[in-house]
Amino acid sequence: MMALLLYILEINNGTTESDRAGMNTLVAGAAGFIGSHLVDALLGAGHSVIGVDNYLLGSKENIEHLEFHPLFTMHNLDISDMHGIRRIFDDNAIDYVFHLAANSDIQAGGRDPNVDLKNTYMTTFNLLECMRMHGVKKLFFPSTSAVYGEKDGESMAEDTGPLNPTSYYGAAKLGSEALISVNCALHDISALVFRFPNVVGPRLTHGVIYDFIRKLKNDPKRLEILGDGQQTKPYLYVGDLIEAIMQFMDAPSGMIVYNVGGETQTNVTQIADIICEVMGLQNVRYKYTGGRVGWPGDVPVFAYDLTKIHNAGWSARYTSDEAVTRTVEELCGQL
Amino acid sequence: MMALLLYILEINNGTTESDRAGMNTLVAGAAGFIGSHLVDALLGAGHSVIGVDNYLLGSKENIEHLEFHPLFTMHNLDISDMHGIRRIFDDNAIDYVFHLAANSDIQAGGRDPNVDLKNTYMTTFNLLECMRMHGVKKLFFPSTSAVYGEKDGESMAEDTGPLNPTSYYGAAKLGSEALISVNCALHDISALVFRFPNVVGPRLTHGVIYDFIRKLKNDPKRLEILGDGQQTKPYLYVGDLIEAIMQFMDAPSGMIVYNVGGETQTNVTQIADIICEVMGLQNVRYKYTGGRVGWPGDVPVFAYDLTKIHNAGWSARYTSDEAVTRTVEELCGQL
Repeated sequence: MMALLLYILEINNGTTESDRAGMNTLVAGAAGFIGSHLVDALLGAGHSVIGVDNYLLGSKENIEHLEFHPLFTMHNLDISDMHGIRRIFDDNAIDYVFHLAANSDIQAGGRDPNVDLKNTYMTTFNLLECMRMHGVKKLFFPSTSAVYGEKDGESMAEDTGPLNPTSYYGAAKLGSEALISVNCALHDISALVFRFPNVVGPRLTHGVIYDFIRKLKNDPKRLEILGDGQQTKPYLYVGDLIEAIMQFMDAPSGMIVYNVGGETQTNVTQIADIICEVMGLQNVRYKYTGGRVGWPGDVPVFAYDLTKIHNAGWSARYTSDEAVTRTVEELCGQL
Repeated sequence: MMALLLYILEINNGTTESDRAGMNTLVAGAAGFIGSHLVDALLGAGHSVIGVDNYLLGSKENIEHLEFHPLFTMHNLDISDMHGIRRIFDDNAIDYVFHLAANSDIQAGGRDPNVDLKNTYMTTFNLLECMRMHGVKKLFFPSTSAVYGEKDGESMAEDTGPLNPTSYYGAAKLGSEALISVNCALHDISALVFRFPNVVGPRLTHGVIYDFIRKLKNDPKRLEILGDGQQTKPYLYVGDLIEAIMQFMDAPSGMIVYNVGGETQTNVTQIADIICEVMGLQNVRYKYTGGRVGWPGDVPVFAYDLTKIHNAGWSARYTSDEAVTRTVEELCGQL
């Protein structure tokens, strides 16, 4: 909790209260991993927040510290239910929608494509429809490096094509971006779209760090590692991501897309090493399942071109290894 | 009808019966404009065709000449209804799916975004799910130049980015391409994807040519033209498109995308001139509604890079003006 409060304070230092305070924001997925951190930051900057979550991946614990906050209200609601979400737009004059409601478990989508259809594509469709019908003009949308697909090390900039997602998660995010593009063109919506890789930090609920810690708590002698352990990705600390959202949320009109991430990467075996070190475990036997990818649809190696967001004045505070280490330290206490 | 039979015969001349005959194909949207021409060509090449259509845009007249064809069966069914379409896959061993079921009326989608969601995105989702569950490995998908969005004259190749559709039609097609990409990556599907511009020819049911002929039959003295008449686009003759499908349908594994079209273009005022000439009308007064675009989401000017399909051995037989002229001649008799 200390770490959370710390970076929220850091963010507040960077923003000017006067030019942002008083907005009425809706945060979809407010009880989720990233969503709940964003709620903290928006409230900290003086905005009102209407939170919505279906608590499928989100957790009440992530927002329980806000229960009596005067600028915060929370709705237990599934945004794939158009009827319910329309009522919230009917009842509130909303200035800004932050659409953090999505399936974030890529492997769950691989097992059942309906998961990403319902929780990612349809939630975007419904929120955009509500915005159109109620004249709401500002949107933040978290997209993903998975829209690019596997590029064999080719550096991916925001205008790189073709886009060939290899997961239903990436496809639903790309489909969502397409819907946002239309709404910006036809209905004068301004949208800030971030494509980011793995985000880690406190309140994380799944992914390789989460899995490894759980496995090692069960059996500190051995660790099963999916793939060959060489899958190498950039890990972004959630506080860095939230800072970037707060910095760019007053985007110009139209749709603006940024790659968001750090320049360093961490491979899966390194993650295992970091966790063993933080947990004080020695001589853990790694058992690799083998193969280039950890699971179907995984993108084992990629390179992100961050020129655009660097030129706009943002860069990540923590390296990938630092992001992993901080997260392991914070999660080891939680799990 | 003569014109139709003619190009079907032309196509058959170009294919070898032996290496293709006997496939069991499913054509979704079989009673539609392009779908019904494709059914004619597939049957002509000796394939069996299971046709499916909800007759929303398709018409029984387009397929009535096939009523007693021994290789053709037809189902009145909406593919956005998963239950119904699954039964067809349960009951038939299908080798190849041609997914021509989609909303093709871009302006209708602009009035109600649910049209493209249901008729384009969800039909793709459902067909891919049926293919995955039944191990069907081959797909043809008609995409569109509208996935690119407005590029201000910049030439659009298959790997051009970013993709910023300005119509719900283009967004649903791009979302569909993303779903196809995933299915190719995860489920070993081979997909031939054509991005093409306006297709014209007999059985056309909407669009600028269709509208102008109807308007001029009602009032041969004056013609209202949306926009400034300078919207310039390539028009592709439907027979050319069908030839390209038949030529490339045995695509290699994975997803292959081609821009398909001609190198020439026709502007809206030229179309009006061609129609007046064919109809023998003189001194028709054109009344322009003004503005660069004909309707919201319209892309007024674009340039297509056709290098990839030319290098693969296909080019359009008819210029854009010829395609328009042939279509006008054929439609004037029908309407």
